[in-house]
Parts: sequence; C-alpha cells; structure tokens
Amino acid sequence: MKPLNKLVLLGAGLIGGSFALALKRARLVREVVGVGRSLANLERAIELKVIDVATQDAAAAVVGADLVMLGTPVGQMGALMEKIAPHLDSACIVTDGGSTKQDVVALYRHHLPRQLAHCVPAHPIAGSDLSGAAAAQYGLYEGRRIVITPLPENAPESIARVRALWEACGGIVHEMDAAEHDGVFACVSHVPHLLAFAYMNAVLDRRNAARCLDFAASGFRDFTRIAGSHPEMWRDITLANREAILADLHTNRVQLERLIALVETAEPAALTSYIERASKARSKWGKSGG
Amino acid sequence: MKPLNKLVLLGAGLIGGSFALALKRARLVREVVGVGRSLANLERAIELKVIDVATQDAAAAVVGADLVMLGTPVGQMGALMEKIAPHLDSACIVTDGGSTKQDVVALYRHHLPRQLAHCVPAHPIAGSDLSGAAAAQYGLYEGRRIVITPLPENAPESIARVRALWEACGGIVHEMDAAEHDGVFACVSHVPHLLAFAYMNAVLDRRNAARCLDFAASGFRDFTRIAGSHPEMWRDITLANREAILADLHTNRVQLERLIALVETAEPAALTSYIERASKARSKWGKSGG
Repeated sequence: MKPLNKLVLLGAGLIGGSFALALKRARLVREVVGVGRSLANLERAIELKVIDVATQDAAAAVVGADLVMLGTPVGQMGALMEKIAPHLDSACIVTDGGSTKQDVVALYRHHLPRQLAHCVPAHPIAGSDLSGAAAAQYGLYEGRRIVITPLPENAPESIARVRALWEACGGIVHEMDAAEHDGVFACVSHVPHLLAFAYMNAVLDRRNAARCLDFAASGFRDFTRIAGSHPEMWRDITLANREAILADLHTNRVQLERLIALVETAEPAALTSYIERASKARSKWGKSGG
Repeated sequence: MKPLNKLVLLGAGLIGGSFALALKRARLVREVVGVGRSLANLERAIELKVIDVATQDAAAAVVGADLVMLGTPVGQMGALMEKIAPHLDSACIVTDGGSTKQDVVALYRHHLPRQLAHCVPAHPIAGSDLSGAAAAQYGLYEGRRIVITPLPENAPESIARVRALWEACGGIVHEMDAAEHDGVFACVSHVPHLLAFAYMNAVLDRRNAARCLDFAASGFRDFTRIAGSHPEMWRDITLANREAILADLHTNRVQLERLIALVETAEPAALTSYIERASKARSKWGKSGG
C-alpha cells in the first residue's frame, strides 16, 4: 500500500494519536501534523513522537494533506469541518473516530458537501479511561472492531483506503449504515451508561444511601463501574444519539414493568425462566470471548 | 476465648466450610461435623479437612453441638430447623449465612421457638462464583463485613459469642435489624442483579440482538456480569426478599421515568448535573476502597 504523505490529526489525543502511532510503525505515513487546543498536549505529542509537527491552525494544517482524521469529541467536529472546508485538496480523505455516526454524517453533509466522495465516517471500538496524547499507544486497535459507515456518495477507492489503513492498525473493519450503528451502540453502550447513572441516582435518593454504599460489594462495583464515566462526554453522546437512545430507554422501561409484574406475581417457574434466559445469554456471550 | 467443642455445619459448602476452616486455624473448634445431601461433597469435605465427620442425619448430628451453622440456601433452612429442633441442647447457638434475613428470622421463630435466645442470624458479605466444599477456603472472611441481625430475644452472651467467632475468622461484624438489612441488600445487590437480567432480556428482544452482542465491549461486559448469575439462586433470593425488592424496583422505575424525561427534554445543563451527581458519587465510592 502507498504510504500517506501527510496525515492531519484534528485532536491529537488517544484516538487520533494511537491511529498515527500504528501507521508510523507500519511505515504507512511520512508526516503527521497534530492540531489541538492545548499547547501542552501538542508539546507532549511531539515529545512522544505521536506527531511530527504541531499547530493550532486547522485551516493551514490541512493544506496538502491526503488524510484528515477528526479525533475530537463530536461536539467540536462541526466547527473544525467548517474551518478546513476551503483548504482541503479535492482528493483528501476525511474520516473521524466519533462514537455516534448519524450526527457526524449530518455534519459532513452540511460542512463538506463538495468533499462527500471522500468523507468516510468511522468508529473504532477501543478506548481507555485515559485521554490526551500521553494516552496514545501502539496496539490500541490490535484485534479491535472498527465500524465504518460509508456514505452512498463515497468513492469506492476512498472506502477501500480507510478500510486498509484501519486494517494496517490491526483493526477488524465492519461496514454498517449509520442508523444501524447508532441503534447498536445505543443498545450496548449508551443505554447501559445511562441506566447505570439512573441506578446510582436512585441509590443516592435513599434515606439510607450512605449505609447502602457502605455495604455495596463486587456485584455493585461491576454494575456501576460505567456510572463513574465522564459527565460532559456522556451528555454529548446522549444528545448526539438521542433518538436511538430514547427508543431503547422505552424498551427498557417496558422490560422493567415486566420484571416488576413477575416479582409481584411471584410465580417461581416464570421468574426462573425469565432469569435463565438472561443468564444463559450472558454466559454464552462471555464464553464467546465477549 | 473458649473453643467450640462441636460445630455442626448444615451444608458443608463455601460459606460453612470457610467458617470451619477459619475456626480450625484459630484453634477455636475441636470437632466439625458436616451434614449434606451430596455424599460426594461430604467425602471431598473430609479429604480437604474442612470437616472431621460426615453424616446425612441432621437430627443426630446436632446432639451435643454447641454451635450449629446453617450454610445451605435459605430455601432448605426451614426443613433443617424442623429436623434439628427436638435435638438441640438448650444452650446450643444456631446461626446461618443466609443472604436475606427477615425470612430466616421468620423461620427461626416458626421452627425453633424455644431456642430463640440463641438463634443469631448472620450474613457474611463474601462469596465466590464457586460452591461446594472444594470452594471452601482459609481467609474468605478476612477483612469482609459480616452483618448480624440479632433478635430481641437473643441472650447477650450468644450475640457476643457469634460476633467473636466471626471476628476470629477475620470478619468485621456489624449489627443491623433484619428489615434494614434486607432493604440495604435489595438496594446494593438484589435489584442490580434483577436490573441486569432485565437489561439482558431487553437486548435479546431486539430484532438485531446478535449484531448488538457482537459489538458489545467492556462497558457492557461489566454492566451485565451479574446477569450471568445462577437462576435458581436468584429466583430464591428474589422471592425471599420480595417486599424490599419491589419497593426498590418501583424507585428505579420512577428514576427511569426521570431519565427518559431528561433525554426527551434534551436540556444540556440538566442532563450534565444528572450524570455528574451519579458520576461523582460512584468515583468517590470507588476511591473509598469500595
């Protein structure tokens, strides 16, 4: 595969930085330019050889780039797209690492209408509790799933290029449409986070909350781990994927009503099969390497 | 402390077996008699020196015992109490390791009305995915919380004796009344399990359940780990602690309505403070060594 001549990271953090490191190791990129708001983070990114050049000027940075990777929170992507739009080479590929896709697709359509042949949305299913350039690591994408949600307008060779680059990072690339992506991740990630926040708030509302927390043990620890997640990030994800999340929350409300009815009725066999269905599926998923 | 002369384990599994091992190591018991339904498990318990004598006859076993520990699932305790009632020494202490307490208290009152001065209900907050005598281990209770829920009828010296034995096992003993115990554990253990089962069933009801499970990652893994728990055990706990669980499920339903309203309204500041409250509390709990 021909190496990239110039890769621009808009946001030189965990996602973009780890992408750059993997491509550098695979000798698939000549120069990496990092753009970010924090000078300290850009300095650190250079020290750690995550990027070769740092700048705070996104518009200037993308001139002559053959690939631009948006690695910021989704909330910052629109403004960045607007800034870079007039300066992109006509063949420059633009991709991103956003964890929601319908909203990013809408941003591409709004801000980069003339670039759509080369805007290939992506979502690498990998992360860390850490963020920033210092968290970027070789191997973050090794064996991890990368979902790409190509646009109908995409040039097949741009899709192929993005796919090949992620595969060079060790990722396993899946294609899906953006709406299915958002439904799947509402289900397996966004809604579990929101349910964990809600459960935690229900505990805090109790008269004896402190005593409860005092006696909480390993089941509680695992069930609520994701309730410790970053508030602004999860506010943004919630707002970005609001429709899919609401549909799923309604499904979960119906499910909760069903559970309450089962406990009220207290019919042992019905309760056993209800629990058994969940338990079997979870055990099977665990054994499948999930 | 004076050692026990004869400790009888009704159920020679993880809970009773680990209690016996700890007391043996502390030289606080002369003879341990194990009673169980599975001959293979009793044989294994003898091989592993968890017990010294095995029998399937609970009534004969308790003759001359100074402490009887009910280490079976709560569902088997009533029948065992009925069997041993006529054979207990008048000063014999009876305790248990049941994870619900109001129902066990009711069983003591029903089956052992003349022994109530010495029936001291307990719940060691320790466990393992494994069960049976082979899972019994030294140190299971080291640094773990042990809740005892004494009866008003209890002789102070019987409470003190049970407390001292658990402390000798390395446990940290807390006293609570049985109703508070059941409320606290509905909140921090039983309801999280049921919510995890319900969430898993909501996923399975989706048209694209297989695809969702295929893309589920670490957040899903932790949130649903307890959904893989043992169906009969959790059916029994649910039925045993039904009132407290129902109260808590209703609280969680109200909380879910509130979350849905927040996502529907999509007011960023309100959503942030909602998430922040949960996230701060969870992080604080995690740092406190929870």
